Amino acid sequence: MSHPSYEKLVERCREIALYQSTASLLGWDQETCLPKAGQAYRAEQCAFFGGKMHRLFTAPEVGGWIADCEASPGEAAVEAANVRDWRWSYERATRLSAEFVEETERVRAIAMPAWGEARERSEFSLFRPHLEKIVGIERQRAELLGYVDEPYDALLESYERGATTAAVGELFAQLKPQLVEIGAAAAARSADVPADLLAGDYPIADQQVFNRQVAAAFGFDFEAGRIDTAAHPFCSGLAPGDTRLTTRYDEGDFCSSLYGVLHEAGHGLYEQGLPAAHYGTPAGAAVSLGIHESQSRLWENHVGRGAAFWEHWFPRAERQFEALQGRSAKDLAAFAGRSAPSFIRVEADEASYDLHIILRFEVERALVGGALEVADLPDYWNAKFEEFFGLRVGRDADGCLQDIHWSMGALGYFPTYTLGNLAAAQLFSAACEQRPEIPDELAAGHYAGLLEWLREKVHRHGGQLLPPQLIEAATGQPLSADAHLAHLRRRYL
Amino acid sequence: MSHPSYEKLVERCREIALYQSTASLLGWDQETCLPKAGQAYRAEQCAFFGGKMHRLFTAPEVGGWIADCEASPGEAAVEAANVRDWRWSYERATRLSAEFVEETERVRAIAMPAWGEARERSEFSLFRPHLEKIVGIERQRAELLGYVDEPYDALLESYERGATTAAVGELFAQLKPQLVEIGAAAAARSADVPADLLAGDYPIADQQVFNRQVAAAFGFDFEAGRIDTAAHPFCSGLAPGDTRLTTRYDEGDFCSSLYGVLHEAGHGLYEQGLPAAHYGTPAGAAVSLGIHESQSRLWENHVGRGAAFWEHWFPRAERQFEALQGRSAKDLAAFAGRSAPSFIRVEADEASYDLHIILRFEVERALVGGALEVADLPDYWNAKFEEFFGLRVGRDADGCLQDIHWSMGALGYFPTYTLGNLAAAQLFSAACEQRPEIPDELAAGHYAGLLEWLREKVHRHGGQLLPPQLIEAATGQPLSADAHLAHLRRRYL
Repeated sequence: MSHPSYEKLVERCREIALYQSTASLLGWDQETCLPKAGQAYRAEQCAFFGGKMHRLFTAPEVGGWIADCEASPGEAAVEAANVRDWRWSYERATRLSAEFVEETERVRAIAMPAWGEARERSEFSLFRPHLEKIVGIERQRAELLGYVDEPYDALLESYERGATTAAVGELFAQLKPQLVEIGAAAAARSADVPADLLAGDYPIADQQVFNRQVAAAFGFDFEAGRIDTAAHPFCSGLAPGDTRLTTRYDEGDFCSSLYGVLHEAGHGLYEQGLPAAHYGTPAGAAVSLGIHESQSRLWENHVGRGAAFWEHWFPRAERQFEALQGRSAKDLAAFAGRSAPSFIRVEADEASYDLHIILRFEVERALVGGALEVADLPDYWNAKFEEFFGLRVGRDADGCLQDIHWSMGALGYFPTYTLGNLAAAQLFSAACEQRPEIPDELAAGHYAGLLEWLREKVHRHGGQLLPPQLIEAATGQPLSADAHLAHLRRRYL
Repeated sequence: MSHPSYEKLVERCREIALYQSTASLLGWDQETCLPKAGQAYRAEQCAFFGGKMHRLFTAPEVGGWIADCEASPGEAAVEAANVRDWRWSYERATRLSAEFVEETERVRAIAMPAWGEARERSEFSLFRPHLEKIVGIERQRAELLGYVDEPYDALLESYERGATTAAVGELFAQLKPQLVEIGAAAAARSADVPADLLAGDYPIADQQVFNRQVAAAFGFDFEAGRIDTAAHPFCSGLAPGDTRLTTRYDEGDFCSSLYGVLHEAGHGLYEQGLPAAHYGTPAGAAVSLGIHESQSRLWENHVGRGAAFWEHWFPRAERQFEALQGRSAKDLAAFAGRSAPSFIRVEADEASYDLHIILRFEVERALVGGALEVADLPDYWNAKFEEFFGLRVGRDADGCLQDIHWSMGALGYFPTYTLGNLAAAQLFSAACEQRPEIPDELAAGHYAGLLEWLREKVHRHGGQLLPPQLIEAATGQPLSADAHLAHLRRRYL
């Protein structure tokens, strides 16, 4: 028997989940459907529900129930994990007022479409006032949440529990020179793979059919999910039985939407594999953004960019796309593994991707810490970009305006992408070691074995194991950059 | 200065509107996007928000505020109309418990997809248990709400304030023989217009372009709305600046999706023309379903099926659809005005449409009153259908399973369609009388004059004038069947 206060907490969290799943639909709809004239009211809705959820969770009785559970802990591991997480979240949430949360929601709901327009027109001045508000809010959030070393710590931990600026900074400092070396070598090796190797006409309807086939083969359940179109690909686990992916289409390059779908399908498989019985509580939710990203990267890169992938899928792609006549599986693999320094993170190849993240980490740290003001962002970004990549940014849409994250108020989010890359490599390597048949299965287009391993080692745990425990339990090692660097060297050098 | 209690009522209703607009999005999404596995949780969400709104509106303080306003009425006509409506709604709402409302929402959210499957497979037995629950709930609702003559009164008035079964029954009894006469003559006159006159291949993408052009020409604002695909066409005024239409596509008949869009665009123009300043209060909302339907019928039939319509639009349609090569504006007009008795209400022509409604009215009255049980519905329907139309129903999908309404718990809704037809004819006739230039404008594809008249006489009033007042103020006459019958005779005899 659980403590009555535990039952009350579960009930409260299930109520919050009803709001949360609705708020997620409001967000999904904003990115896929919402007419322009509906944006202002949508901002009010988001603020209203944001405040509502915050009040429900930060109510004094919730603190009392948590204390009750701590005083007489239940026996089940799930209960212990939930109480541990509620305590952590409650401590943080109660440092913010409902009004602060509402204001955040309102500002971001207005800033997101403004960013969209600024990016489309490549005019930083259109986004600047919104970003100034957001940076102000996030600096204030850091002060309210508190930190030991520097304000950025407080934000980083919102996305990756336990991560610190110092530790991430150190990791990134070690990675950077090796990534620069790998990136340069990979680019040299790709010099004979022309960027227009697959140039042709790829009708969107054909891309949709093909993408769906691959996602379904990976194991994504379309009875419990769907794929839509959005300017910025994302995955939203809206509710039990309702996981939605988005991608964007380039009629001259089917790989752009395909790899978007493979990436988001990785997120989607995680969402679909979470323990439904614990829905609404931390034990039923994804444990961190870094672990979430490990799943998307694993399917996108380790599976989707492996040479075996195109051996299997090329014949089907050739049937689907007339433009592929005369091409080979080898061409496809070469194109998917092509490396070249480029401006846009979401289109960056594996060998240069993490440098984009390290750059953003440095920019955000400066913005949040106050060393950089929004007005100076474009120059700062462009100087750093040239230092990292040897390329001069010509327009802000290719520079500091390219990502949606800051418009959503998500400062501190980017580092989880590289943490996810490291975890993806380490998990994939462990899976292949523990189940040596996996590479052959992947070559045959059979993904169930790998998915089963991930369900067992990652998905089914929900939020029960914290990221370091999860990685160690699954791979036998603490998280490190070794597997990722080994993978990049093997594939790109 | 308004009474402080009036301000409190407005504030409460604006809060309810935040929930309502979100519930509408949940509903829209259920019909257009929701994956199958997400239906069960969606039912919980709908029940939760339904109960929430009910509790917010039926709270004792709301009754107190309404009484305060009645005791010291404000001067503004808007205030008086809002207080009058709140009183009416409050009296009715407080007769239902929140649990009853939640149960209703839960049952309908489950029944709707079950109906969809039953209809697709034409298996009444799949829908029967759900419909039994719904009829039980609606009979109970009628008892809870109360009535003078018979239970159906209570439901009818939920959709059309002031309507009574007796009055509607009498009106329908007068209409029926005239409709039978007109229908027979119209069918005879259409005998030389073959059903496959326009048979050909009409790609969905082309239909979408064309439909959008016409809807935009009518005045539908796509910055504040959109068109999607759904099994059952509908219009949802989700929120300020966000009005969504749906239609369905038949690749062999572009008129099916087109007239769906023209109909829903009529609803959409009403929603987009409501006074935004009063959003959330009755004065900012559509006044009744009958008036709503008058707007859709007016644009679909009086504008969209007029001979002038195809004179103007045929050249564009010919450019859009290859299959129209060799056809003429006259062919299109003949096809759009073709009349023949048929099984499906939503595809019925103007001349036979109201008979479908009268049939449903009689069926619903018997179901709610207890003279008919759900188990006997298919036989009862089929016998009546043969009596009305001289056609034998072969499968329930073409009979009692064809409409979504009962799965939504909407018993008492159908009569508003014919009330809407009467109002549409009377309004259109008055518009052409008061602004004699309208017919020439329509022939030239200029719709702004008609829309302006509707904005002025119908839309801008929101819920301020009750339907009888509105019709009389706009047309100088109480609502009658004269204009509608005259229109049908002119067009079909």
